[in-house]
Amino acid sequence: MTSDQAQAPTATVTTPTDREIRIERIFNAPRDRVFALYTDPELIPEWWGPYGTTAEVDEMDVRTGGRWRFVMHNSDGSQTGFRGAYREVTAPERIVQTFEWEPMAGHVSVDTATFEDLGDRTRVVTTSIFHTTEERDGMLGSGMEGGLQETYQRLDALLERLVG
Amino acid sequence: MTSDQAQAPTATVTTPTDREIRIERIFNAPRDRVFALYTDPELIPEWWGPYGTTAEVDEMDVRTGGRWRFVMHNSDGSQTGFRGAYREVTAPERIVQTFEWEPMAGHVSVDTATFEDLGDRTRVVTTSIFHTTEERDGMLGSGMEGGLQETYQRLDALLERLVG
Repeated sequence: MTSDQAQAPTATVTTPTDREIRIERIFNAPRDRVFALYTDPELIPEWWGPYGTTAEVDEMDVRTGGRWRFVMHNSDGSQTGFRGAYREVTAPERIVQTFEWEPMAGHVSVDTATFEDLGDRTRVVTTSIFHTTEERDGMLGSGMEGGLQETYQRLDALLERLVG
Repeated sequence: MTSDQAQAPTATVTTPTDREIRIERIFNAPRDRVFALYTDPELIPEWWGPYGTTAEVDEMDVRTGGRWRFVMHNSDGSQTGFRGAYREVTAPERIVQTFEWEPMAGHVSVDTATFEDLGDRTRVVTTSIFHTTEERDGMLGSGMEGGLQETYQRLDALLERLVG
């Protein structure tokens, strides 16, 4: 089982409370390396977003109080923005940031990502909290899970390329 | 009592749940006029913020999905920013917007203001919801209530000037 999981990890999505989404995923790389990819503006375009999209970093000031904004370019030429602010950046353990999809401006989640050192692997748990259950359910219904699994697969591939 | 209230209205601040702040205030002007002042970028510098400050409107796109940003200039020359996005603007009844003080970037409340028509007066109820109780309590402990009472007194004075 362990070797199967190592070959094809998937993210587990749960709803621990009526305002939260919890996502757990194992990456086959040491914690410092995974944390580095999450926080490197140069590498965001290599992995952030589902297959067929390319993220452009408009702003990414990775420190407490800093802001971030990515523009996602789709294969049909359309684009859409995402933004937020960093509430806490504690390398290599923890990032707390807000998340807002611009077409749903004013709907803001707080996403806490923790990076657990498992030796040559890393467990990343991201908990998103919303102001209301309706907003949480809106996110769940948006197709985010499929996009998320693809994003993590792209991150797997990038981690592998950077090692090689 | 009614005439006393009309002469010196004060805002009532309560905490209906552990993540909310509710503020109720009567203004001695018809609803259309009060709503107009809340949504007019030209007039924000005349009333938004406590005595001794001047608000500068950097951005104020009063429609669903639009963004706002004000810079508050203090009498000592310092300045601080506030920003958010409009989730709903239904004239002259209701405005839902996010609120973020830039030095506390990533701490975002959703503020719902309702404007109730009382004839020649208007009841404005603003309910702010926070992601956590800690953030709600941080706002309560920030001295916001004093600043709020002064802001509303400045709005009273402006409403009176515009009638006269």
